[in-house]
Amino acid sequence: MPENLDLEQAVRSLSGRPLPGDVGVVQPRDFVHQQPFTFKSGQVIPGFTLRYETYGTLNATRDNAVLICHALSGDHHCAGWHSTEDRKPGWWNNLIGPGKAVDTDRFHVICANVLGGCQGSTGPSSLNPATGTPYGTSFPFVTIHDMVRAQKLLLDHLGVLQLHAVIGGSMGGMQAQLFAIEYPQFVRRVIAMATTARESAQAIAFNEVGRQAIMQDPAWNRGNYSKDGGPRVGLAIARMMAHITYVSDASMDRKFGRRKKDSAHADAYTFEPQFEVEGYLRYQGQSFINRFDANSYLYITRALDQFDLAQAHGSLEAAYAAVEAETLIVGFTSDWLFPPDQNRALALALLRAGKRASYAELDTDLGHDSFLLESEELYTLVRGFLDRGQSYVFDYSI
Amino acid sequence: MPENLDLEQAVRSLSGRPLPGDVGVVQPRDFVHQQPFTFKSGQVIPGFTLRYETYGTLNATRDNAVLICHALSGDHHCAGWHSTEDRKPGWWNNLIGPGKAVDTDRFHVICANVLGGCQGSTGPSSLNPATGTPYGTSFPFVTIHDMVRAQKLLLDHLGVLQLHAVIGGSMGGMQAQLFAIEYPQFVRRVIAMATTARESAQAIAFNEVGRQAIMQDPAWNRGNYSKDGGPRVGLAIARMMAHITYVSDASMDRKFGRRKKDSAHADAYTFEPQFEVEGYLRYQGQSFINRFDANSYLYITRALDQFDLAQAHGSLEAAYAAVEAETLIVGFTSDWLFPPDQNRALALALLRAGKRASYAELDTDLGHDSFLLESEELYTLVRGFLDRGQSYVFDYSI
Repeated sequence: MPENLDLEQAVRSLSGRPLPGDVGVVQPRDFVHQQPFTFKSGQVIPGFTLRYETYGTLNATRDNAVLICHALSGDHHCAGWHSTEDRKPGWWNNLIGPGKAVDTDRFHVICANVLGGCQGSTGPSSLNPATGTPYGTSFPFVTIHDMVRAQKLLLDHLGVLQLHAVIGGSMGGMQAQLFAIEYPQFVRRVIAMATTARESAQAIAFNEVGRQAIMQDPAWNRGNYSKDGGPRVGLAIARMMAHITYVSDASMDRKFGRRKKDSAHADAYTFEPQFEVEGYLRYQGQSFINRFDANSYLYITRALDQFDLAQAHGSLEAAYAAVEAETLIVGFTSDWLFPPDQNRALALALLRAGKRASYAELDTDLGHDSFLLESEELYTLVRGFLDRGQSYVFDYSI
Repeated sequence: MPENLDLEQAVRSLSGRPLPGDVGVVQPRDFVHQQPFTFKSGQVIPGFTLRYETYGTLNATRDNAVLICHALSGDHHCAGWHSTEDRKPGWWNNLIGPGKAVDTDRFHVICANVLGGCQGSTGPSSLNPATGTPYGTSFPFVTIHDMVRAQKLLLDHLGVLQLHAVIGGSMGGMQAQLFAIEYPQFVRRVIAMATTARESAQAIAFNEVGRQAIMQDPAWNRGNYSKDGGPRVGLAIARMMAHITYVSDASMDRKFGRRKKDSAHADAYTFEPQFEVEGYLRYQGQSFINRFDANSYLYITRALDQFDLAQAHGSLEAAYAAVEAETLIVGFTSDWLFPPDQNRALALALLRAGKRASYAELDTDLGHDSFLLESEELYTLVRGFLDRGQSYVFDYSI
């Protein structure tokens, strides 16, 4: 989160109003699709709901929409506040708002919780209308492709004729790429950050440890648990580990180093949290289990693992063959989950396929989560890419 | 493990004899120290056992001993075979043996399972003589310092007057450094590889997630469990995660990539292991729980976290002030657990403190475990450092 969040919050509290540049108090809405939906796996559900938010106004030509796609643990609430008492704004509030890089005075911004998620969209924790109980692991296996198709149905419902841009980081970047592949005439611009065309063995390995932590927790019970129960211990372990992969050695050392939680007990011998970084990680784990469903974690990490554009199309160049959008790929030097090389490879493959593509590599030491954090350099890139009228290839690194 | 292990094994099976250059079938022995031992924490046990092995012969002047110190999950069995039917040799069999880099024709090699361990040395799984039940978490908190002091008692018992060298990687490298600090006149040479003078926040964070996986497993039961019970699930999760940190993104990609376990089900949708790397990790977890005690894992990872030479002495240079040994530090480019910089820092601090120290950085892509793997370059460095008669400073990188 931005470092100055508390200051922002203090200013808001004093004024009782949204900050300048802020979309203000926003309301999530539900798109209810009442027809059967067939997943890539062949499994079918009788219908689904996507919870979403919009900011800004759709123009008369219905082509100023910008779709924001969220990452594994994100949701539809990417900007603004849910009430004037809200402690935190949406997860990309620093990027999205009036006059910001994604300018809600110009663009109609849309963001939906993914299919398979747990923040209001249909997923494993939703009730199966056929049984009246949660789907649990009877929910169909979801893919990035399914997430994208469901969002396209939402955009059709909203009357969007063409996307000015689709923007996402990490898993959101996978969705953004796939949008341009599946709906080439519908997508004019893609911005994909801190992402990949397919996970490495190491990324799969980390996801597998997280899934094992959840599935080996007796409270998982093969996916059948009540809303307040479930494998909270396993999910917290999975989140603690995953969180390490979202940051960097350097950023953890700067933030925590080897500082002890309580200097009075600096030399204590204990298995309780002794170093600040331990307490921080436990907090990350505990706060996650209050907002995320363990089965959704299984489904979405599996979707991440199975995403493989080259395998699906024969090669990455073949995958991109139909793309008509201009693409901006942004990698971050300290991202070791989806490292710069994996991002650069997307832009190269697009260029080889004859597409308009650019790659920018931002020098940060904040790790994978860099795309979420304050960066004037990133804002300038995004603003420039969304603003420009005509196509040309520009490039920072290649 | 060396890639050609199966071939070695096949040759051994055919010949029924140890390979040339092999120390052959070896027997572990027990050193029983029957006097109270006070830990750095102030806690006391009435005595302890260290299980150890030796190879080669102690010379008449009792100064050709080489002490090998093992890492977190290692043990005293670092070379040779426990029987002619053994499937695997000791963990550093590629480095240690007749005519090898650590030449058992010249050196009397000694290796002991650490205090707090679970391979025959006294640790949390040992019976507390006062109660007749396992110590569990009533075992004193152990530090690297305690491990070193216990091994010094063993060396005194064996009649060693001076160590020709102490050699270790990872946690073994911490012990090796501390030997030269605590017993300056006793240690002539130190080789410390893939190690650090103190863990970074990230390394502490990974250890903490592993400990949480163990301690949150209901079968941990605050450390009270039977020999065949205990938090097997939590320990397996901890090991799976830790194993990722011992290798590298590149080596996992080369070894497994995104290969599926069963090509017939390559497109299956399942939470069962689908990618080879998942099956491999589960195997790592399952084999570990059959040989390692969960409480020992807690104690030893805590010892790793608390090791901090600079904090203990005011500065790293002050820590090394008394050292008389010559030191060779070896870092590995792809080690992201104890990265090259942390290794280089040791040699620099030794040089600043006016000591004979050298740093060599080996270019590998095998990660932290590189120190355990076949490397002619490493063997040459170790052999040269152990052989040379007089002191001079040499250096690859600084």
